[in-house]
Amino acid sequence: MHYKAAVVGASGYAGCELVRILSKHPNFELVCAVSDTLESKSVADVYPALTGKVDLKYVSRKQANLSSVDVCFLAVPHTASLSCAPSLVEAGVVVIDLSADFRLKDADVYEHYYNAAHTQRGLLERAHFGLPELCKQEIIEAKHDYENNQGVLVACAGCYPTATSLAAVPALRANLVEEGSTIIVDAISGVSGAGRKPSSRTHFCTANENLSPYGLLEHRHTPEMEQIMDHSGPVLFTPHLAPLNRGLLSTVTMKLAQPDVALSAQLVQEIYESYYTSCSFIHVLPQGTLAQTSSVVGTNEAHLCVAYSKRTGNLVSICAIDNLCKGAAGQAVQCANIVFGLDEASGLEMVAMPI
Amino acid sequence: MHYKAAVVGASGYAGCELVRILSKHPNFELVCAVSDTLESKSVADVYPALTGKVDLKYVSRKQANLSSVDVCFLAVPHTASLSCAPSLVEAGVVVIDLSADFRLKDADVYEHYYNAAHTQRGLLERAHFGLPELCKQEIIEAKHDYENNQGVLVACAGCYPTATSLAAVPALRANLVEEGSTIIVDAISGVSGAGRKPSSRTHFCTANENLSPYGLLEHRHTPEMEQIMDHSGPVLFTPHLAPLNRGLLSTVTMKLAQPDVALSAQLVQEIYESYYTSCSFIHVLPQGTLAQTSSVVGTNEAHLCVAYSKRTGNLVSICAIDNLCKGAAGQAVQCANIVFGLDEASGLEMVAMPI
Amino acid sequence: MHYKAAVVGASGYAGCELVRILSKHPNFELVCAVSDTLESKSVADVYPALTGKVDLKYVSRKQANLSSVDVCFLAVPHTASLSCAPSLVEAGVVVIDLSADFRLKDADVYEHYYNAAHTQRGLLERAHFGLPELCKQEIIEAKHDYENNQGVLVACAGCYPTATSLAAVPALRANLVEEGSTIIVDAISGVSGAGRKPSSRTHFCTANENLSPYGLLEHRHTPEMEQIMDHSGPVLFTPHLAPLNRGLLSTVTMKLAQPDVALSAQLVQEIYESYYTSCSFIHVLPQGTLAQTSSVVGTNEAHLCVAYSKRTGNLVSICAIDNLCKGAAGQAVQCANIVFGLDEASGLEMVAMPI
Amino acid sequence: MHYKAAVVGASGYAGCELVRILSKHPNFELVCAVSDTLESKSVADVYPALTGKVDLKYVSRKQANLSSVDVCFLAVPHTASLSCAPSLVEAGVVVIDLSADFRLKDADVYEHYYNAAHTQRGLLERAHFGLPELCKQEIIEAKHDYENNQGVLVACAGCYPTATSLAAVPALRANLVEEGSTIIVDAISGVSGAGRKPSSRTHFCTANENLSPYGLLEHRHTPEMEQIMDHSGPVLFTPHLAPLNRGLLSTVTMKLAQPDVALSAQLVQEIYESYYTSCSFIHVLPQGTLAQTSSVVGTNEAHLCVAYSKRTGNLVSICAIDNLCKGAAGQAVQCANIVFGLDEASGLEMVAMPI
Repeated sequence: MHYKAAVVGASGYAGCELVRILSKHPNFELVCAVSDTLESKSVADVYPALTGKVDLKYVSRKQANLSSVDVCFLAVPHTASLSCAPSLVEAGVVVIDLSADFRLKDADVYEHYYNAAHTQRGLLERAHFGLPELCKQEIIEAKHDYENNQGVLVACAGCYPTATSLAAVPALRANLVEEGSTIIVDAISGVSGAGRKPSSRTHFCTANENLSPYGLLEHRHTPEMEQIMDHSGPVLFTPHLAPLNRGLLSTVTMKLAQPDVALSAQLVQEIYESYYTSCSFIHVLPQGTLAQTSSVVGTNEAHLCVAYSKRTGNLVSICAIDNLCKGAAGQAVQCANIVFGLDEASGLEMVAMPI
Repeated sequence: MHYKAAVVGASGYAGCELVRILSKHPNFELVCAVSDTLESKSVADVYPALTGKVDLKYVSRKQANLSSVDVCFLAVPHTASLSCAPSLVEAGVVVIDLSADFRLKDADVYEHYYNAAHTQRGLLERAHFGLPELCKQEIIEAKHDYENNQGVLVACAGCYPTATSLAAVPALRANLVEEGSTIIVDAISGVSGAGRKPSSRTHFCTANENLSPYGLLEHRHTPEMEQIMDHSGPVLFTPHLAPLNRGLLSTVTMKLAQPDVALSAQLVQEIYESYYTSCSFIHVLPQGTLAQTSSVVGTNEAHLCVAYSKRTGNLVSICAIDNLCKGAAGQAVQCANIVFGLDEASGLEMVAMPI
Repeated sequence: MHYKAAVVGASGYAGCELVRILSKHPNFELVCAVSDTLESKSVADVYPALTGKVDLKYVSRKQANLSSVDVCFLAVPHTASLSCAPSLVEAGVVVIDLSADFRLKDADVYEHYYNAAHTQRGLLERAHFGLPELCKQEIIEAKHDYENNQGVLVACAGCYPTATSLAAVPALRANLVEEGSTIIVDAISGVSGAGRKPSSRTHFCTANENLSPYGLLEHRHTPEMEQIMDHSGPVLFTPHLAPLNRGLLSTVTMKLAQPDVALSAQLVQEIYESYYTSCSFIHVLPQGTLAQTSSVVGTNEAHLCVAYSKRTGNLVSICAIDNLCKGAAGQAVQCANIVFGLDEASGLEMVAMPI
Repeated sequence: MHYKAAVVGASGYAGCELVRILSKHPNFELVCAVSDTLESKSVADVYPALTGKVDLKYVSRKQANLSSVDVCFLAVPHTASLSCAPSLVEAGVVVIDLSADFRLKDADVYEHYYNAAHTQRGLLERAHFGLPELCKQEIIEAKHDYENNQGVLVACAGCYPTATSLAAVPALRANLVEEGSTIIVDAISGVSGAGRKPSSRTHFCTANENLSPYGLLEHRHTPEMEQIMDHSGPVLFTPHLAPLNRGLLSTVTMKLAQPDVALSAQLVQEIYESYYTSCSFIHVLPQGTLAQTSSVVGTNEAHLCVAYSKRTGNLVSICAIDNLCKGAAGQAVQCANIVFGLDEASGLEMVAMPI
């Protein structure tokens, strides 16, 4: 099967990663790379790594005939999808949105965290959340919408919520975590997470040889984590920036419910392994092996490890992903694969470079 | 005043940083750099950055006449100080120990975490803990020992305990933290923290472009943090490795005691500023400015920021240090300065490179 | 078509890159990963990036039944292939050698530069040099040997000779370069070129934030470059180490023959484009676009740019490759593809990550 | 002696390095940091590494009373000094210019390479070139101007010309190099050389894990090198960017004059050592030790090594400096020290971090 695909926001880092993946996808053919800022430039001139691989020029949104494609990926900043998505969904295009606009079920929470009006509350109700391993029912519903020729809108999970929720949810669903307790999330990201726009913060000399926290207490991914986790207590999220291009590591500390004499490291390990047993992209590492980001860079995979601190009554669960791939473009393609009835891993079989 | 100084373990990273600092110290003259593995090699050949700055050859422990110096810094692995320190203290040399051997007051805890017998329990009782900003009385006692011509042994705090305790203690002393609660410590270190010995883990291609946790649940710095903090609950410590040479960032999350309506970000800020008001090396950054490691690299300083999460009832306190300087060699020199009655900052007035 | 493949020296960096490539190769099935030092360990335990991708354990050379495979890649240090290769060739296995043992046609030169006896001068005469774009006839002869059921031995070019010769040869073949002139080669490599063995030089803290030359005047790749280039003058080669994992950039300066009024930047560009017109892995970038290593990392491609300095009468030609891929494992697989009559690019269609 | 100093362009990287150095200089007191773009911001807010070290706010050029200082450092882009310098010189301020405006003796060459009119040809004749080790007479003349109460203008050498000329000049002055031969310069710089302004090229994700040439054939430092070297042949200069903050390595290849049977590696070494025998900042490393940038970062020093290729009839001379220090701010302070009759090394006694 062959489908025509477009990427809106193809000049940004997540958009570019979509272009890279789609250039080799056996079922999706990239026919349109939309960027207003780079209009008429060759994709390979902007990203020379794509020389000989992608023979497209960027087109402006106005020029692009997006309603003619089968699937449109929106790799745009928040609020941009609010204006882009409705007409595409209306036109029967499968819309895979990488922005934050349709992730939060509660539009009021969106308005609070993003400081913008949510102008598409009706469409929001029809959006499905895209994090297939944790929200399976949602992506199945999106598939049904597609099969029923209804407009399809998938709002893919953000990078931090993906890694963090993958680390936390098995313990939460197994009722290991104390009611009402705060889930402590300390995560570290490579600099590509800050986007392509040059700034003082993303200047090589600022980011290199430096470790810094940011977005303390109020990072916008917090409510998204809370929505996915559906825990009775809040999430306290502290992200950090480290000097590498790609890679995101989330360390999640969860207070265990009242002492459970039966609990053991082995049991926790089994709970995690069992939870992801049918998830080909998620690898729960054997006890004693710790997750690291270099093992997943360039892939749609997540590496997970979990430790049971009997002494303090906590679980420490750690997940490594590539922020641009499983944290953005890879997950978007995975969602599209499912919606179109393809193999979930179609076009996503990259192997990370071990060195 | 001029004193003769020796460094044992001068080939390692902390030892080399001591050599660097002492090469410019106005009061200590480095007369002896001890290394059994590099015996008879020139220091500047091993570390070409010291060309023209240090005109010494490494000598073996046997060759070194350590009892003739005024102060001896021990930058050696644990258990090595157990054999080194006693005769030096006996000989009246001021011993500043950077190893873990005399840090933990409870020798049984030492034996458990370090899996080695503590053969110097008597000397342990006379050792003073070196982290002047938090354990002021201890370093004053060491000074008194010196003034009274008694043997002096200072056991300097480790890198993670230094940064972490600097972040936690003001809140703990102000009784802001819930009784018995677990203090969650997620910290990130540069690769120099792993030492000079080449290994698969410190190979450039392993550490570069990678984020990885290590020492989960059982890192040896845990009991040291608990000893300094003296909190009714445990510390849960998860260290991570990131691709930079120097720098250590510790993010500490503490559960607040029952809702205190009077508490505010402003009040927390004042508590921290007030706690360190007379500490010239500690900078509590203004609200909204976050600590980053690049600001302190090469210096003996700590940058601190603290955030009050009213929503979740927690404090997030973050401290950045240079693991080799304030986390090791700089702190050792600071302790020596105090013991000898010098200005605490003597020889430690380096300015970090802003770029 | 399906062939069984083995990698000897699978624990090293080039060997591991072979394993990565072969894990996705449509025609070669990796059945045996040989490493004496890692015997019986799981490949995925040593390189967690291969988790779920490679389900093999390392076997020792003794255990391995190498004569039963169709193709055997030797990713071993020099002199090791001298003992490995003969029996394999004898047994009819196609041997693709990544070591230096059979690269130099003149065994005396080998003995001089490698300070070791060349014990296989007979086999050396039957070896074919593997750098298909520049030594096409050699790889065709290897293919003929295979078709004629004769033992096949391909000695793949080294990393620096590959990039450097790709940059120099079109100008040399077009007789642009002055007779007898020295070809100046200044090249820069990432740290993976130094191999997997931990050492002081490959320690993260030594290599990071550092630029250093090495192997001045006498690097072993010099005679290999001279052999490929077949120029009347010598090569003066100065390699440098820079802080990145993968990537090799070779800057080649060539003195032009007597003033040629007809020569122009445009003409030089055309000479280069024409030379590589049928080489799918080689991209001569348009004038004004400069080669950079990040564009080729993880791929078997070379990016080239060339500049004509009329003012000084020189050409500056620059080539970027991935030292582990086109500079080692990728080129080896390319050679094997040709020998077995497969598409030259089979299993080598990776796209570099633009970010 | 105490002198008042100002830095114009104090927000840029070279300007900031000046601020860092002056903050500890025993004879110059920084009283004014000029930046139009950061006017009224605190220096320590922009560069948190200077917290507690520099208690100044940026002032605009209009606000600054520059004629009241003793020395003014101009760390501004080219053409800006053309407008800044005249009135300051007129007012009797010692002007140390880090821009390119007064470096080239031939204003026509300036106009060609910088594509701008040189509006101060009169003042240019009175400017002295600042690279004390190679152009000693010039800085002595500047000192005389100062002693005679005449306006002083020193135009400090650029970063690449400094390292390159330090590597080349001893061989040139000893007449080792062939008449008319092209001097081949391949140099590598850290990213701080590209300045503080964020751009696509200085974005962390572009520069990291990448090696790239730039400015091929026409880099503006070329004529400056030719002016300093004063060789009968041209310089062919190819700069490269590598992923590190600070550090510049210049590899210079020079064709030797007709075979000199007496020449030897030892003799070349002696020529170089002898040339720099009284230069405290220049270290000619012993034979077999190679220059590396990490040894000089943060300092005003240069490390040099030289190799004699008898086989090809060339010299390879390599120099490592910190581009922001000896390549900019450090050299500026060194020049100022000399002009004011201070110890040349005053305030410049930093020791590089060996790790």
